[in-house]
Amino acid sequence: MNAICGISPEMHLEVTMLFEEYGRLLDEDRLEDWTALFMPDCLYEIISRENVEQNLPLSLMLCDSRDMLDDRVYSLREANVFNIHYDCHIIGPVRVTAQDGAWTATAAYSLFQSIQAGETRLFSVGRYHAELKRVDGVLRIAKMRVLVDTGAILTLLATPI
Amino acid sequence: MNAICGISPEMHLEVTMLFEEYGRLLDEDRLEDWTALFMPDCLYEIISRENVEQNLPLSLMLCDSRDMLDDRVYSLREANVFNIHYDCHIIGPVRVTAQDGAWTATAAYSLFQSIQAGETRLFSVGRYHAELKRVDGVLRIAKMRVLVDTGAILTLLATPI
Amino acid sequence: MNAICGISPEMHLEVTMLFEEYGRLLDEDRLEDWTALFMPDCLYEIISRENVEQNLPLSLMLCDSRDMLDDRVYSLREANVFNIHYDCHIIGPVRVTAQDGAWTATAAYSLFQSIQAGETRLFSVGRYHAELKRVDGVLRIAKMRVLVDTGAILTLLATPI
Repeated sequence: MNAICGISPEMHLEVTMLFEEYGRLLDEDRLEDWTALFMPDCLYEIISRENVEQNLPLSLMLCDSRDMLDDRVYSLREANVFNIHYDCHIIGPVRVTAQDGAWTATAAYSLFQSIQAGETRLFSVGRYHAELKRVDGVLRIAKMRVLVDTGAILTLLATPI
Repeated sequence: MNAICGISPEMHLEVTMLFEEYGRLLDEDRLEDWTALFMPDCLYEIISRENVEQNLPLSLMLCDSRDMLDDRVYSLREANVFNIHYDCHIIGPVRVTAQDGAWTATAAYSLFQSIQAGETRLFSVGRYHAELKRVDGVLRIAKMRVLVDTGAILTLLATPI
Repeated sequence: MNAICGISPEMHLEVTMLFEEYGRLLDEDRLEDWTALFMPDCLYEIISRENVEQNLPLSLMLCDSRDMLDDRVYSLREANVFNIHYDCHIIGPVRVTAQDGAWTATAAYSLFQSIQAGETRLFSVGRYHAELKRVDGVLRIAKMRVLVDTGAILTLLATPI
Protein backbone atom coordinates (compact mmCIF):
# COMPACT_ATOMS: atom_id res chain seq x y z
CA MET A 1 0.00 0.00 0.00
CA ASN A 2 1.55 3.25 -1.14
CA ALA A 3 0.39 5.39 1.75
CA ILE A 4 2.20 3.46 4.42
CA CYS A 5 5.11 2.18 2.33
CA GLY A 6 4.87 -1.43 3.51
CA ILE A 7 5.72 -0.39 7.08
CA SER A 8 3.85 -2.27 9.82
CA PRO A 9 2.24 -0.37 12.72
CA GLU A 10 4.80 -2.00 15.03
CA MET A 11 7.75 -0.73 12.98
CA HIS A 12 6.19 2.69 12.59
CA LEU A 13 5.64 2.93 16.32
CA GLU A 14 9.23 1.93 17.03
CA VAL A 15 10.58 4.66 14.75
CA THR A 16 8.16 7.24 16.14
CA MET A 17 9.31 6.36 19.66
CA LEU A 18 12.93 6.90 18.58
CA PHE A 19 12.02 10.41 17.40
CA GLU A 20 10.06 10.97 20.60
CA GLU A 21 13.07 9.92 22.66
CA TYR A 22 15.36 12.11 20.55
CA GLY A 23 13.27 15.21 21.28
CA ARG A 24 12.58 14.40 24.93
CA LEU A 25 16.23 13.74 25.81
CA LEU A 26 17.20 17.11 24.32
CA ASP A 27 14.32 18.83 26.14
CA GLU A 28 15.36 17.25 29.43
CA ASP A 29 19.01 18.25 28.87
CA ARG A 30 20.05 14.59 28.90
CA LEU A 31 22.57 15.19 26.13
CA GLU A 32 24.76 12.21 27.03
CA ASP A 33 21.77 9.87 26.64
CA TRP A 34 20.88 11.64 23.40
CA THR A 35 24.25 10.87 21.79
CA ALA A 36 23.72 7.20 22.75
CA LEU A 37 20.86 7.09 20.20
CA PHE A 38 23.49 7.38 17.44
CA MET A 39 25.69 4.66 15.98
CA PRO A 40 29.44 5.03 16.62
CA ASP A 41 29.92 5.67 12.91
CA CYS A 42 27.26 8.32 12.30
CA LEU A 43 26.63 11.69 10.75
CA TYR A 44 24.82 14.56 12.46
CA GLU A 45 24.35 17.70 10.45
CA ILE A 46 22.31 20.88 10.82
CA ILE A 47 22.04 22.75 7.55
CA SER A 48 19.79 25.55 6.33
CA ARG A 49 17.23 24.64 3.72
CA GLU A 50 18.40 27.59 1.67
CA ASN A 51 21.92 26.15 1.48
CA VAL A 52 20.63 22.70 0.54
CA GLU A 53 18.54 24.10 -2.28
CA GLN A 54 21.47 26.12 -3.62
CA ASN A 55 23.88 23.19 -3.22
CA LEU A 56 26.01 25.15 -0.79
CA PRO A 57 27.83 22.71 1.47
CA LEU A 58 28.15 24.91 4.56
CA SER A 59 26.66 23.29 7.66
CA LEU A 60 25.60 25.05 10.82
CA MET A 61 26.74 22.04 12.81
CA LEU A 62 28.50 18.91 11.59
CA CYS A 63 29.65 15.87 13.55
CA ASP A 64 30.75 12.79 11.61
CA SER A 65 31.01 10.30 14.48
CA ARG A 66 29.47 9.70 17.88
CA ASP A 67 32.82 10.57 19.45
CA MET A 68 32.57 13.99 17.87
CA LEU A 69 29.00 14.36 19.19
CA ASP A 70 30.23 13.35 22.65
CA ASP A 71 33.01 15.95 22.40
CA ARG A 72 30.50 18.61 21.52
CA VAL A 73 28.31 17.68 24.48
CA TYR A 74 31.35 17.69 26.78
CA SER A 75 32.23 21.11 25.46
CA LEU A 76 28.69 22.34 26.16
CA ARG A 77 28.92 21.02 29.69
CA GLU A 78 32.40 22.28 30.51
CA ALA A 79 33.54 25.10 28.27
CA ASN A 80 30.86 26.88 26.30
CA VAL A 81 29.08 29.95 27.57
CA PHE A 82 25.55 30.25 26.28
CA ASN A 83 22.21 31.37 27.57
CA ILE A 84 20.54 28.82 29.80
CA HIS A 85 17.20 27.73 28.41
CA TYR A 86 14.62 24.97 28.32
CA ASP A 87 14.02 23.34 24.94
CA CYS A 88 10.63 22.01 23.89
CA HIS A 89 10.47 19.96 20.68
CA ILE A 90 7.08 19.37 19.06
CA ILE A 91 7.51 16.72 16.38
CA GLY A 92 4.86 15.93 13.77
CA PRO A 93 3.89 12.55 12.28
CA VAL A 94 6.89 10.47 11.14
CA ARG A 95 7.10 8.97 7.65
CA VAL A 96 9.11 5.73 7.52
CA THR A 97 10.43 3.95 4.43
CA ALA A 98 12.27 0.61 4.36
CA GLN A 99 15.41 0.58 2.24
CA ASP A 100 17.98 -2.25 1.93
CA GLY A 101 17.74 -3.51 5.51
CA ALA A 102 17.72 0.05 6.85
CA TRP A 103 15.06 2.74 7.19
CA THR A 104 14.73 6.35 6.23
CA ALA A 105 12.45 8.54 8.30
CA THR A 106 11.38 12.15 8.13
CA ALA A 107 9.33 14.43 10.34
CA ALA A 108 8.74 18.16 10.71
CA TYR A 109 9.62 19.79 14.03
CA SER A 110 9.10 23.03 15.87
CA LEU A 111 11.50 23.93 18.63
CA PHE A 112 10.67 26.43 21.35
CA GLN A 113 13.08 27.85 23.89
CA SER A 114 12.14 29.25 27.28
CA ILE A 115 14.58 31.49 29.09
CA GLN A 116 15.05 31.87 32.82
CA ALA A 117 12.81 34.94 32.91
CA GLY A 118 10.03 32.56 31.90
CA GLU A 119 9.40 33.73 28.36
CA THR A 120 9.11 31.28 25.50
CA ARG A 121 9.97 32.03 21.91
CA LEU A 122 9.95 30.07 18.71
CA PHE A 123 13.56 29.11 18.08
CA SER A 124 13.55 26.96 14.97
CA VAL A 125 11.31 25.04 12.61
CA GLY A 126 12.33 22.57 9.94
CA ARG A 127 12.52 18.90 9.13
CA TYR A 128 14.46 15.86 10.27
CA HIS A 129 15.80 13.45 7.65
CA ALA A 130 17.16 10.32 9.29
CA GLU A 131 18.71 7.02 8.29
CA LEU A 132 18.20 4.30 10.88
CA LYS A 133 19.78 0.88 11.36
CA ARG A 134 19.16 -1.93 13.78
CA VAL A 135 22.21 -2.68 15.95
CA ASP A 136 21.98 -5.66 18.34
CA GLY A 137 18.21 -5.50 18.06
CA VAL A 138 17.96 -1.79 18.84
CA LEU A 139 17.15 0.96 16.35
CA ARG A 140 19.96 3.53 16.10
CA ILE A 141 20.58 6.70 14.11
CA ALA A 142 23.13 6.24 11.31
CA LYS A 143 22.53 9.67 9.85
CA MET A 144 20.54 12.69 10.97
CA ARG A 145 20.29 15.74 8.76
CA VAL A 146 18.31 18.62 10.22
CA LEU A 147 17.08 20.99 7.50
CA VAL A 148 16.22 24.27 9.19
CA ASP A 149 13.81 26.76 7.65
CA THR A 150 14.79 29.37 10.22
CA GLY A 151 18.13 30.66 8.98
CA ALA A 152 18.22 33.93 10.87
CA ILE A 153 18.57 33.11 14.55
CA LEU A 154 21.21 30.45 14.22
CA THR A 155 24.00 32.68 15.44
CA LEU A 156 22.63 31.59 18.79
CA LEU A 157 22.83 27.89 17.98
CA ALA A 158 24.64 26.17 20.85
CA THR A 159 22.71 23.03 21.74
CA PRO A 160 21.61 20.44 19.14
CA ILE A 161 18.25 20.65 17.41
CA MET B 1 -13.80 0.54 22.05
CA ASN B 2 -14.92 4.14 22.28
CA ALA B 3 -11.49 5.71 22.45
CA ILE B 4 -10.33 4.44 19.09
CA CYS B 5 -13.71 4.28 17.33
CA GLY B 6 -13.24 0.77 15.93
CA ILE B 7 -10.31 1.94 13.79
CA SER B 8 -7.44 -0.52 13.45
CA PRO B 9 -3.83 0.64 13.91
CA GLU B 10 -3.25 -0.06 10.19
CA MET B 11 -6.14 2.18 9.15
CA HIS B 12 -5.14 4.87 11.61
CA LEU B 13 -1.59 4.81 10.30
CA GLU B 14 -2.76 5.09 6.71
CA VAL B 15 -4.87 8.17 7.49
CA THR B 16 -2.08 9.72 9.56
CA MET B 17 0.31 9.21 6.65
CA LEU B 18 -2.15 10.98 4.33
CA PHE B 19 -2.13 13.99 6.67
CA GLU B 20 1.66 13.77 6.88
CA GLU B 21 1.91 13.76 3.09
CA TYR B 22 -0.55 16.66 2.86
CA GLY B 23 1.61 18.83 5.11
CA ARG B 24 4.95 17.74 3.65
CA LEU B 25 3.94 18.33 0.03
CA LEU B 26 2.85 21.87 0.93
CA ASP B 27 6.05 22.45 2.91
CA GLU B 28 8.17 21.24 -0.02
CA ASP B 29 6.22 23.44 -2.45
CA ARG B 30 5.07 20.37 -4.38
CA LEU B 31 1.62 21.87 -4.92
CA GLU B 32 0.86 19.79 -8.03
CA ASP B 33 1.44 16.58 -6.04
CA TRP B 34 -0.65 18.02 -3.21
CA THR B 35 -3.74 18.49 -5.42
CA ALA B 36 -3.34 14.85 -6.51
CA LEU B 37 -4.30 13.84 -2.95
CA PHE B 38 -7.83 15.05 -3.67
CA MET B 39 -10.62 13.30 -5.55
CA PRO B 40 -11.68 14.92 -8.86
CA ASP B 41 -15.01 15.77 -7.26
CA CYS B 42 -13.86 17.38 -4.01
CA LEU B 43 -14.27 20.36 -1.76
CA TYR B 44 -11.43 22.40 -0.28
CA GLU B 45 -12.38 25.23 2.00
CA ILE B 46 -10.55 27.52 4.40
CA ILE B 47 -12.92 29.25 6.77
CA SER B 48 -12.44 31.15 10.01
CA ARG B 49 -13.73 29.49 13.12
CA GLU B 50 -15.48 32.71 14.00
CA ASN B 51 -17.51 32.56 10.79
CA VAL B 52 -18.39 28.92 11.33
CA GLU B 53 -19.65 29.60 14.84
CA GLN B 54 -21.76 32.53 13.64
CA ASN B 55 -23.07 30.58 10.63
CA LEU B 56 -21.53 33.09 8.25
CA PRO B 57 -20.83 31.36 4.94
CA LEU B 58 -17.85 33.46 3.79
CA SER B 59 -14.79 31.34 3.07
CA LEU B 60 -11.22 32.56 2.90
CA MET B 61 -10.55 30.07 0.11
CA LEU B 62 -13.01 27.75 -1.62
CA CYS B 63 -12.42 25.25 -4.42
CA ASP B 64 -15.18 22.78 -5.26
CA SER B 65 -13.27 20.47 -7.61
CA ARG B 66 -9.70 19.27 -8.17
CA ASP B 67 -9.68 21.21 -11.45
CA MET B 68 -10.30 24.37 -9.49
CA LEU B 69 -7.48 23.45 -7.08
CA ASP B 70 -5.21 22.84 -10.07
CA ASP B 71 -6.17 26.22 -11.50
CA ARG B 72 -5.32 27.89 -8.26
CA VAL B 73 -1.92 26.20 -8.13
CA TYR B 74 -1.29 27.18 -11.76
CA SER B 75 -2.18 30.74 -10.87
CA LEU B 76 0.24 30.67 -7.94
CA ARG B 77 2.97 29.42 -10.25
CA GLU B 78 2.36 31.78 -13.17
CA ALA B 79 0.43 34.86 -12.19
CA ASN B 80 0.24 35.67 -8.49
CA VAL B 81 2.74 37.89 -6.78
CA PHE B 82 3.25 37.01 -3.14
CA ASN B 83 6.10 36.89 -0.70
CA ILE B 84 8.32 33.87 -1.16
CA HIS B 85 8.42 31.74 1.96
CA TYR B 86 8.98 28.27 3.37
CA ASP B 87 6.00 26.62 5.03
CA CYS B 88 6.35 24.24 7.97
CA HIS B 89 3.23 22.34 9.08
CA ILE B 90 3.23 20.67 12.49
CA ILE B 91 0.21 18.40 12.70
CA GLY B 92 -1.02 16.82 15.93
CA PRO B 93 -2.52 13.35 16.49
CA VAL B 94 -5.24 12.46 13.97
CA ARG B 95 -8.69 11.18 15.07
CA VAL B 96 -10.30 8.85 12.55
CA THR B 97 -13.93 7.70 12.46
CA ALA B 98 -15.44 5.21 10.02
CA GLN B 99 -18.72 6.29 8.45
CA ASP B 100 -20.68 4.51 5.69
CA GLY B 101 -17.69 3.18 3.76
CA ALA B 102 -15.84 6.50 4.15
CA TRP B 103 -13.84 8.08 6.94
CA THR B 104 -13.86 11.38 8.73
CA ALA B 105 -10.61 12.61 10.22
CA THR B 106 -9.60 15.64 12.23
CA ALA B 107 -6.32 17.03 13.49
CA ALA B 108 -5.02 20.33 14.86
CA TYR B 109 -2.22 22.07 12.97
CA SER B 110 0.23 24.89 13.44
CA LEU B 111 1.73 26.49 10.35
CA PHE B 112 4.95 28.47 10.44
CA GLN B 113 6.33 30.58 7.60
CA SER B 114 9.98 31.47 7.14
CA ILE B 115 10.88 34.37 4.88
CA GLN B 116 14.00 34.78 2.81
CA ALA B 117 15.68 36.89 5.45
CA GLY B 118 15.59 33.73 7.56
CA GLU B 119 13.02 34.72 10.14
CA THR B 120 10.19 32.39 11.09
CA ARG B 121 6.81 33.48 12.34
CA LEU B 122 3.64 31.72 13.36
CA PHE B 123 1.29 32.07 10.41
CA SER B 124 -1.82 30.12 11.34
CA VAL B 125 -3.23 27.61 13.78
CA GLY B 126 -6.48 25.70 13.53
CA ARG B 127 -7.95 22.34 12.74
CA TYR B 128 -8.43 20.12 9.70
CA HIS B 129 -11.77 18.39 9.19
CA ALA B 130 -11.55 15.86 6.36
CA GLU B 131 -13.72 13.32 4.63
CA LEU B 132 -11.75 10.53 3.00
CA LYS B 133 -12.68 7.84 0.49
CA ARG B 134 -10.82 4.93 -1.00
CA VAL B 135 -10.45 5.22 -4.79
CA ASP B 136 -8.83 2.30 -6.64
CA GLY B 137 -7.33 1.15 -3.35
CA VAL B 138 -5.83 4.53 -2.44
CA LEU B 139 -7.13 6.90 0.23
CA ARG B 140 -8.12 10.28 -1.21
CA ILE B 141 -9.56 13.51 0.15
CA ALA B 142 -13.24 14.02 -0.71
CA LYS B 143 -13.58 17.08 1.48
CA MET B 144 -11.14 19.21 3.45
CA ARG B 145 -12.38 22.04 5.61
CA VAL B 146 -9.67 24.03 7.36
CA LEU B 147 -11.04 25.91 10.35
CA VAL B 148 -8.57 28.65 11.20
CA ASP B 149 -8.34 30.20 14.63
CA THR B 150 -6.06 32.92 13.31
CA GLY B 151 -8.41 35.31 11.56
CA ALA B 152 -6.19 38.36 11.49
CA ILE B 153 -3.30 37.61 9.17
CA LEU B 154 -5.25 36.01 6.38
CA THR B 155 -5.04 39.01 4.13
CA LEU B 156 -1.71 37.46 3.31
CA LEU B 157 -3.19 34.08 2.49
CA ALA B 158 -1.85 32.99 -0.90
CA THR B 159 -0.76 29.36 -0.64
CA PRO B 160 -3.05 26.65 0.78
CA ILE B 161 -3.00 25.72 4.45
CA MET C 1 11.77 -4.29 22.69
CA ASN C 2 13.12 -1.32 24.56
CA ALA C 3 11.98 1.38 22.16
CA ILE C 4 8.30 0.69 22.52
CA CYS C 5 8.27 -0.57 26.12
CA GLY C 6 6.18 -3.66 25.42
CA ILE C 7 3.21 -1.51 24.39
CA SER C 8 1.15 -2.82 21.47
CA PRO C 9 0.15 -0.52 18.60
CA GLU C 10 -3.49 -0.89 19.75
CA MET C 11 -2.68 0.24 23.28
CA HIS C 12 -0.47 3.05 22.03
CA LEU C 13 -3.22 4.26 19.73
CA GLU C 14 -5.77 4.19 22.52
CA VAL C 15 -3.57 6.35 24.76
CA THR C 16 -2.73 8.72 21.90
CA MET C 17 -6.45 9.13 21.22
CA LEU C 18 -7.02 10.00 24.87
CA PHE C 19 -4.43 12.78 24.58
CA GLU C 20 -5.99 13.87 21.29
CA GLU C 21 -9.41 14.04 22.93
CA TYR C 22 -7.97 15.92 25.91
CA GLY C 23 -6.56 18.64 23.65
CA ARG C 24 -9.54 18.80 21.30
CA LEU C 25 -12.14 19.11 24.07
CA LEU C 26 -10.20 22.03 25.55
CA ASP C 27 -9.81 23.63 22.11
CA GLU C 28 -13.54 23.30 21.45
CA ASP C 29 -14.37 24.75 24.87
CA ARG C 30 -16.12 21.52 25.88
CA LEU C 31 -14.76 21.76 29.40
CA GLU C 32 -17.51 19.63 30.95
CA ASP C 33 -16.63 16.76 28.60
CA TRP C 34 -12.96 17.33 29.35
CA THR C 35 -13.43 16.76 33.09
CA ALA C 36 -15.23 13.51 32.26
CA LEU C 37 -11.88 12.13 31.02
CA PHE C 38 -10.68 12.09 34.64
CA MET C 39 -11.40 9.53 37.34
CA PRO C 40 -13.51 10.78 40.29
CA ASP C 41 -10.45 10.39 42.50
CA CYS C 42 -7.84 12.21 40.41
CA LEU C 43 -5.11 14.82 40.52
CA TYR C 44 -4.72 17.65 38.03
CA GLU C 45 -1.77 19.95 38.54
CA ILE C 46 -0.07 22.66 36.50
CA ILE C 47 3.38 23.42 37.81
CA SER C 48 6.35 25.29 36.39
CA ARG C 49 9.34 23.21 35.43
CA GLU C 50 11.51 25.61 37.38
CA ASN C 51 9.60 24.87 40.58
CA VAL C 52 9.78 21.11 39.99
CA GLU C 53 13.54 21.25 39.53
CA GLN C 54 13.97 23.32 42.67
CA ASN C 55 11.58 21.11 44.67
CA LEU C 56 9.28 24.06 45.27
CA PRO C 57 5.76 22.75 45.84
CA LEU C 58 3.83 25.77 44.53
CA SER C 59 1.40 24.84 41.75
CA LEU C 60 -0.15 27.20 39.25
CA MET C 61 -3.34 25.15 39.34
CA LEU C 62 -4.19 22.17 41.56
CA CYS C 63 -7.35 20.11 41.70
CA ASP C 64 -7.32 16.87 43.67
CA SER C 65 -10.65 15.41 42.57
CA ARG C 66 -12.96 15.52 39.58
CA ASP C 67 -15.48 17.42 41.72
CA MET C 68 -12.87 20.14 42.18
CA LEU C 69 -12.23 20.18 38.41
CA ASP C 70 -15.97 20.48 37.82
CA ASP C 71 -16.16 23.35 40.30
CA ARG C 72 -13.38 25.13 38.47
CA VAL C 73 -15.15 24.70 35.15
CA TYR C 74 -18.40 25.93 36.69
CA SER C 75 -16.56 28.95 38.01
CA LEU C 76 -15.11 29.63 34.54
CA ARG C 77 -18.59 29.46 33.07
CA GLU C 78 -20.39 31.53 35.67
CA ALA C 79 -18.10 33.74 37.67
CA ASN C 80 -14.65 34.34 36.25
CA VAL C 81 -13.85 37.25 34.01
CA PHE C 82 -11.08 36.51 31.55
CA ASN C 83 -10.25 37.31 27.97
CA ILE C 84 -12.22 35.22 25.49
CA HIS C 85 -9.94 33.18 23.28
CA TYR C 86 -9.64 30.08 21.15
CA ASP C 87 -7.15 27.47 22.32
CA CYS C 88 -5.20 25.29 19.91
CA HIS C 89 -3.18 22.41 21.38
CA ILE C 90 -0.51 20.76 19.24
CA ILE C 91 0.60 17.57 20.98
CA GLY C 92 3.69 15.59 19.97
CA PRO C 93 4.19 11.81 19.94
CA VAL C 94 3.06 10.10 23.16
CA ARG C 95 5.32 7.70 25.09
CA VAL C 96 3.42 5.01 26.99
CA THR C 97 4.76 2.70 29.69
CA ALA C 98 2.85 -0.10 31.40
CA GLN C 99 3.14 -0.16 35.16
CA ASP C 100 1.28 -2.42 37.62
CA GLY C 101 -2.00 -2.61 35.72
CA ALA C 102 -1.87 1.10 34.96
CA TRP C 103 -0.02 3.21 32.40
CA THR C 104 2.15 6.28 32.49
CA ALA C 105 2.23 8.49 29.44
CA THR C 106 4.09 11.64 28.50
CA ALA C 107 3.98 14.03 25.57
CA ALA C 108 5.20 17.54 24.78
CA TYR C 109 2.63 20.19 23.90
CA SER C 110 2.46 23.66 22.46
CA LEU C 111 -0.60 25.75 23.19
CA PHE C 112 -1.60 28.73 21.06
CA GLN C 113 -4.31 31.24 21.91
CA SER C 114 -6.19 33.34 19.39
CA ILE C 115 -8.02 36.43 20.59
CA GLN C 116 -11.16 37.93 19.17
CA ALA C 117 -9.20 40.43 17.10
CA GLY C 118 -7.93 37.38 15.22
CA GLU C 119 -4.33 37.35 16.35
CA THR C 120 -2.67 34.17 17.56
CA ARG C 121 0.15 33.99 20.05
CA LEU C 122 2.13 31.24 21.64
CA PHE C 123 0.68 30.84 25.12
CA SER C 124 2.53 27.93 26.69
CA VAL C 125 4.84 25.02 25.92
CA GLY C 126 5.73 22.13 28.18
CA ARG C 127 5.06 18.49 28.84
CA TYR C 128 2.20 16.31 30.05
CA HIS C 129 2.94 13.55 32.55
CA ALA C 130 -0.10 11.34 33.01
CA GLU C 131 -1.12 8.24 34.93
CA LEU C 132 -3.94 6.33 33.30
CA LYS C 133 -6.21 3.56 34.52
CA ARG C 134 -8.91 1.47 32.89
CA VAL C 135 -12.32 1.97 34.50
CA ASP C 136 -15.22 -0.17 33.21
CA GLY C 137 -13.23 -0.80 30.04
CA VAL C 138 -12.49 2.86 29.35
CA LEU C 139 -9.13 4.56 29.80
CA ARG C 140 -9.30 7.44 32.28
CA ILE C 141 -6.86 9.96 33.73
CA ALA C 142 -5.87 9.20 37.33
CA LYS C 143 -3.21 11.89 37.43
CA MET C 144 -2.20 14.68 35.07
CA ARG C 145 0.76 16.86 35.86
CA VAL C 146 1.46 19.61 33.34
CA LEU C 147 5.05 20.83 33.55
CA VAL C 148 5.16 24.24 31.89
CA ASP C 149 8.37 25.69 30.47
CA THR C 150 6.68 29.06 30.01
CA GLY C 151 6.68 30.54 33.51
CA ALA C 152 6.16 34.18 32.55
CA ILE C 153 2.69 34.52 31.11
CA LEU C 154 0.87 32.43 33.66
CA THR C 155 -0.65 35.40 35.42
CA LEU C 156 -3.17 35.06 32.62
CA LEU C 157 -3.85 31.39 33.28
CA ALA C 158 -7.60 30.94 33.50
CA THR C 159 -8.54 27.88 31.44
CA PRO C 160 -6.77 24.51 31.85
CA ILE C 161 -3.74 23.56 29.76
